[in-house]
Amino acid sequence: MKIRPELLSLLTREDSFFIATHISPDGDGLGSALALSMALESMGKKTLVYDKDEVPELYSFLPGRERFIRAIPDPESRISNLILVDCNEPERAGLENTAISNSAVIDHHETLNEFGDIKWIEPHAAATGLMVYYLIKELGLKLTKEMATNLYTAIAIDTGTFRYNNTTSEVLKASAELVDAGAEPAAIAVALYETWSEKRFRLLIMTLDTLEIKGDIALVHVTREMFEKTGTSPEDTESFAVFPRRMKHVNAVAFFMEMPDRRWKISLRSRGAYNVADIALVFKGGGHRNAAGYKISTDLNTAKELLLKTLAGAAK
Amino acid sequence: MKIRPELLSLLTREDSFFIATHISPDGDGLGSALALSMALESMGKKTLVYDKDEVPELYSFLPGRERFIRAIPDPESRISNLILVDCNEPERAGLENTAISNSAVIDHHETLNEFGDIKWIEPHAAATGLMVYYLIKELGLKLTKEMATNLYTAIAIDTGTFRYNNTTSEVLKASAELVDAGAEPAAIAVALYETWSEKRFRLLIMTLDTLEIKGDIALVHVTREMFEKTGTSPEDTESFAVFPRRMKHVNAVAFFMEMPDRRWKISLRSRGAYNVADIALVFKGGGHRNAAGYKISTDLNTAKELLLKTLAGAAK
Repeated sequence: MKIRPELLSLLTREDSFFIATHISPDGDGLGSALALSMALESMGKKTLVYDKDEVPELYSFLPGRERFIRAIPDPESRISNLILVDCNEPERAGLENTAISNSAVIDHHETLNEFGDIKWIEPHAAATGLMVYYLIKELGLKLTKEMATNLYTAIAIDTGTFRYNNTTSEVLKASAELVDAGAEPAAIAVALYETWSEKRFRLLIMTLDTLEIKGDIALVHVTREMFEKTGTSPEDTESFAVFPRRMKHVNAVAFFMEMPDRRWKISLRSRGAYNVADIALVFKGGGHRNAAGYKISTDLNTAKELLLKTLAGAAK
Repeated sequence: MKIRPELLSLLTREDSFFIATHISPDGDGLGSALALSMALESMGKKTLVYDKDEVPELYSFLPGRERFIRAIPDPESRISNLILVDCNEPERAGLENTAISNSAVIDHHETLNEFGDIKWIEPHAAATGLMVYYLIKELGLKLTKEMATNLYTAIAIDTGTFRYNNTTSEVLKASAELVDAGAEPAAIAVALYETWSEKRFRLLIMTLDTLEIKGDIALVHVTREMFEKTGTSPEDTESFAVFPRRMKHVNAVAFFMEMPDRRWKISLRSRGAYNVADIALVFKGGGHRNAAGYKISTDLNTAKELLLKTLAGAAK
């Protein structure tokens, strides 16, 4: 990983920065932004940390989460020294209507757009948090327990705590150093995976009760009625689609969620064979090879049939 | 971690070894035994690798699993140069009726017994696999992909793939080196966590459907009828007790399983507060602070009531 010298000189030269991450923020975006803010402030710089959306309850354990602002303090003037983390265009951060005078991008997502006076993109990095970790080391700063907890969380969430195929020895070595700096693996794992509400767990059970298996495809769904019965909401279904993947012969999981407007939102998860990004595209959705989604206006049975037909026709 | 010099000299001096691990073997016992066998053979030694029980289907992906023998080749003569791994007394390995002339123990479980001419016990090591990793390094042997896969699996299973509080920076550093030597984190995670049969997954759903919550205690159960309906067996319930722990307010999980003789086998899992080893002891069972179990001859409701009463009376 080669950190761009222009980025290092920008961070050392300028006095204040506006750090922003993407809407619907996740642990990698939030943790990377917070650690970067803490690192720059330890150099005597000023930072603002911005996310248009609220920090999800799940991430309320992140040290420094109260740094996040959701509104631009002075919307009339230009943002200077914008640093986008874990995304690479202002739209993804909800900054499409904001004037920007100087910008840098730190991201591990592939990009085709031109945004950013300085672009540091590492599509092979497991997490943006890993990049920020190297950046902090390169700047010669002391890694505090707070920074380490944010960066470990960022890496944990994007590698499925070391279960996905982006788990390289580099990822494990960096994580070991983050533990040496004070990150607590078990406490972070409990915070990420064992803080469900009872009603969310009841909704999971109800959802799994709807399991249908067609060949190597597993289908599960959640209706408005199930949300009402359990007192839950769509956010509570986070990660539901991964449960049926435990089955050896299941290569694709489709999770159907009924929306308030009666449309269905479909989340697809696959491994190996199926490219679900292609499937989602057929229904005007999008995503990655192994995780994609789309929305459809039809009844549940038709939605399932249409999907199965499309999957059957798709080249694996 | 200080490897006993007597152990190093035993391994260098002698020509053949009988490596044994515990009955009901798990990934740490199996992976440690196989890696040690491969390491010693790479030094030109002969090894036998013994487990009284069959290698569970779950671990059929371990390189070298076919090395395991389940019967002692020459039961009349003494076993010499026995190396017990991941256990510390011959009974745990089903060797109570066997004459043993020279023995060493490599284990991370606390022990109060006297067995072993050479004892290398590290109660603070996350896994026996971690000890064998250091041993192989100390012996100056090349770590092959096969050894690395066995040792990574051993460490993964005993740390909940880096989620339990035995996940130290040492564990992560060793795992990084195992990846450098050829272990594949994602392939191992899929083999460990995503190879369930459909009937096992159906049994999980049925089990979760029985969920009762009493204060901070979650109760789930499996009956003989549920096994019959799904065509499953007790082995299929492995790890079922951990699912309800996802709920934030649940501090203890009790999993009740009906046995062929109509008795109930209870597995307890807790975090923080409850010491379930003490609870199991009340019912003449045993275990550790956060994972214990016992058997009881009574009907399900009485079994549940007795447990809840005991938990209520126990000091948290």
